[in-house]
Amino acid sequence: MPQDRLPELPIDDLQPIAGGGLLDRRLFLQRGLAFAAAAFAGVKARADELERPVWMLKPGKPFSNYGQPSPFEAGTIRWIASNPAAPGNGISWTPLHQLAGTITPSGLHFERHHNGVPEIDPAQHRLLIHGLVKNPIFFSIDRLLRYPMISRICFIECGGNSNAGWHEEPMQAALGNLHGLVSCSEWTGIPLGILLEEAGLLPEARWLIAEGADAAAMNVSIPVEKALDDAILAIFQNGERLRPENGYPLRLILPGWEGVLNVKWLRKLHAADQPAMARNETAKYTELQPDGKARQFTFFMETKSLITHPSPGHRLEGPGLYQVSGLAWSGRGRIVRVEVSADGGKTWAEAALPDPVLSKSFTRFRIPWRWDGSPAILKSRATDETGYVQPERAALVSARGRNGYYHYNAITSWAVAEDGSLSHVYA
Amino acid sequence: MPQDRLPELPIDDLQPIAGGGLLDRRLFLQRGLAFAAAAFAGVKARADELERPVWMLKPGKPFSNYGQPSPFEAGTIRWIASNPAAPGNGISWTPLHQLAGTITPSGLHFERHHNGVPEIDPAQHRLLIHGLVKNPIFFSIDRLLRYPMISRICFIECGGNSNAGWHEEPMQAALGNLHGLVSCSEWTGIPLGILLEEAGLLPEARWLIAEGADAAAMNVSIPVEKALDDAILAIFQNGERLRPENGYPLRLILPGWEGVLNVKWLRKLHAADQPAMARNETAKYTELQPDGKARQFTFFMETKSLITHPSPGHRLEGPGLYQVSGLAWSGRGRIVRVEVSADGGKTWAEAALPDPVLSKSFTRFRIPWRWDGSPAILKSRATDETGYVQPERAALVSARGRNGYYHYNAITSWAVAEDGSLSHVYA
Repeated sequence: MPQDRLPELPIDDLQPIAGGGLLDRRLFLQRGLAFAAAAFAGVKARADELERPVWMLKPGKPFSNYGQPSPFEAGTIRWIASNPAAPGNGISWTPLHQLAGTITPSGLHFERHHNGVPEIDPAQHRLLIHGLVKNPIFFSIDRLLRYPMISRICFIECGGNSNAGWHEEPMQAALGNLHGLVSCSEWTGIPLGILLEEAGLLPEARWLIAEGADAAAMNVSIPVEKALDDAILAIFQNGERLRPENGYPLRLILPGWEGVLNVKWLRKLHAADQPAMARNETAKYTELQPDGKARQFTFFMETKSLITHPSPGHRLEGPGLYQVSGLAWSGRGRIVRVEVSADGGKTWAEAALPDPVLSKSFTRFRIPWRWDGSPAILKSRATDETGYVQPERAALVSARGRNGYYHYNAITSWAVAEDGSLSHVYA
Repeated sequence: MPQDRLPELPIDDLQPIAGGGLLDRRLFLQRGLAFAAAAFAGVKARADELERPVWMLKPGKPFSNYGQPSPFEAGTIRWIASNPAAPGNGISWTPLHQLAGTITPSGLHFERHHNGVPEIDPAQHRLLIHGLVKNPIFFSIDRLLRYPMISRICFIECGGNSNAGWHEEPMQAALGNLHGLVSCSEWTGIPLGILLEEAGLLPEARWLIAEGADAAAMNVSIPVEKALDDAILAIFQNGERLRPENGYPLRLILPGWEGVLNVKWLRKLHAADQPAMARNETAKYTELQPDGKARQFTFFMETKSLITHPSPGHRLEGPGLYQVSGLAWSGRGRIVRVEVSADGGKTWAEAALPDPVLSKSFTRFRIPWRWDGSPAILKSRATDETGYVQPERAALVSARGRNGYYHYNAITSWAVAEDGSLSHVYA
C-alpha cells in the first residue's frame, strides 16, 4: 500500500491573480482540498507502521501547577536590548516570526521599561485620582475588583517600533527584532470613565497626567476624551492577573494608542487643564518634520502590516505552493483589506482575513503563493476602516523627512533569493 | 478638597427587572456612568497625595526572556488530583474563580493525562495517516509547518467535568475545583481535511482511530464527518507552540467535542470502517441510562454556564451594587442568551454578552445586581443557537438517572448568606 512516488502536481495549471505567483485567497475552498493537498506534497509513507518512540516506553512527567513551554522551544524568547549601565532601561522584542495566530502569550509580550520592573505588593498599591475633580479618591486593588469589568482584545505597540525602517540601509534581522515591539492580548478591567465620573471631573479638566509606580515615575498626558471613550484600567491580561512586566497590578489601556501612553503600574491620574509636557511626550516620541515643526501628541498608531511567514531567517524549501501569512493592525479601528505583492509592488492580490476581525487588534492575513524558484519580493499593504492605506517607504520618508525615529509604519519588503533565503530590502 | 463623606447613593430608586435585585444589563449605558460610580462607592481620599512606595525608590528588576506571573499570584494555580501510585494519571483544574475574560492562559489550561506528559523531541515526532487510505503518509513537524493554517478560539472541556454535580449532596469547593476541567485557547494549525485528502480516504472509511504518543498510547475513534468538518491539527496554542501538557508538538482539536477526543501528542490517524471500541469510549465517557441502554459516542459538549464571580470562596462586602459575571459555552455553536436569577430560579433577567460571541468558545456574561443583604440564590442558564436551554439539575437527573458520571451540564446554584459568603447548593 505505501507509495514512494509523489503524486502528479497540477499546480502549474493554476491561474495566478497577481504577478509572482499569488493565487486566489479562496483557493482551498474553491478548488477543493485535494488540489491543495497534492500541491503541498507530503512525504509518502514507506511503511504502514510507526515504531514507538522512547517517550512511549515509560510514564511521562507528572502534573504541574503552572505550565511552561517545552524545553525544545527554549529558543522562542524575547530578545533583550538594554543599557548595560542601567539594565532596567531598554526593550525586549516579541518574536513575531516564531508565533502564529493573533494572541501574544503573556510571557512573550514585548517590554519597554525606563527603570526596571517594580515588584509591587498589590495589597499596598493604590491608585489616586485627583487634581481637577470634585472628589479625589484612593482605590485599592481589592476595591477595584468589585467594579464592573469589560474585556477587550487589542494590540499595544511602542511608538519606537520598527524604527530601523528610518535607517539608510535595510537592517538585517529576524522580523521580531525589527518589528516586535507590538503584541496583542485580551485585557480585562474597569472602564476608566466609571471612576472618573465617581471622582467628578471638573469641566476645566482636559488632560489626565498618568503616572506609574516604577522607579522612573514614568508619566504622560492623556486627553480626557480618550479616557472617557474606551480606556480600561486593566487588572487581567489573557485571563490571569497582569504580568509584572506588563504593569501588575494595574495598567492603563488606551486601545490603538501609542504604547508609552498605556501606563504600567498605574498609581496616579491627575486631572489638569493642560498636558504635563513630560519627558516622554517632548524629548521622546516626538519628531521634527521637514518644515521645522514637530509632530507631538500623535497618539494613534497608524495602520501597519507585516509578513511574518516567510520572513528573514526562514527558508523556502524549493519551488512550490506556500501560505504567505502575516499580521495587520490599525489604531483607528478595523482592518478591512490586506493586499500582498510577490513582484515588489507592481501587482497586488487580496489576502484572506479571518472572521471575526476585531477593531484595534491583530488581524491575521493569509494567501496562497506558488513560488517558481526565481527571485521575488514580497510585500503586504493594509487598509483600515477609515480608508487609510499603509504607505510605501519612499512616501513615508518623503512626508516625514529624515529626522524620524518613531512611528514608522511603511510597507516592509522581503526579498526571496533563488536558494529560498529571505532578506530585508527597501524596494 | 478631599472628602470624608460618601456621596448620596441613589441605588434604592432603581427598578429591578427580576427578583432579588437583578438590574437591566444595559444599566451602565442607560443611566450614565455617574449613577454606577456613586453606587459602587469607592474610598474617598483623605489626602490629595500618595507617598512613594518602597519599590519606587530603587531600580526595578531587569528584562526577562520569558515572563512569569507575579510572586504575589502564586496562589493562582491548577489544582492537581492524581493517583499516588501512578502520578501521571489524573487531572488538574483551571482556577476559573480566579480568572477573568475568556482566554485561559496556557500555563493554567486544565490537564487530563492517562500516563503522564511525554517529553517529545519535535524533530523525531511523526504523524502517520494510514488504514483505509490510498496513500499512507508520514508527516514531520517541519513538513506540517509548510501547510496552510487557520486559527480558532474554542473551548476544550473534559467529559468528566463537573461530575460532582451527580453527587447526592452538593460538594463544597471553589468553582475551579468543581467545574475547572474546561479551558479556552486560540489554536492554530492545519485543517485536518487537507491532510486526509492528500492521503486519499477510501469511501469505506467511516472512522479515524486517533492515537497519542504518550505512554498510555491513548486512543479514541473520531467520525470522518467531524474530521472533514472543522477539525484542526494544532501546532500553536495562544500564539506560541503547544505546551507539553497540551499535546506538544501536535494535537487534534475537535471544536465543541468532548475533551478526550482532542488527542494530545497525536501520532496516528488510522482510517477504519468501524470505531476501535477503545477503553476511553466504552469503559469510560459512556453512561448507563435508566432504561438500561448506554449513552456512547455523545461527542458534543452540551450548553453550560457558570457564575464565576461571585462564587464560593469569594465574599460580598455588604449590601450594594455588584457585577455578576460568568462563562457560557456550547459544543453546538454560539451562545445566544444567558439569563441570571437571584431568587433561586423564580425569575430571570437577561445578562449582557460581549461582542463578538464566538461559536464553540467561552462567552463571558455580565449583569448588575443590587444585593439587599438578605439570603439569595444565584443561578445562570444559557441557551445556544440551536435553541437548546441548559437544564435544571432535577431535569437532568430525571433524564439520565443516577448512574451518571460524565457530561453534567445542569444549572449550578450558589447560595449567598447574610454574611456575604457563598456556598454550592442544589436549589
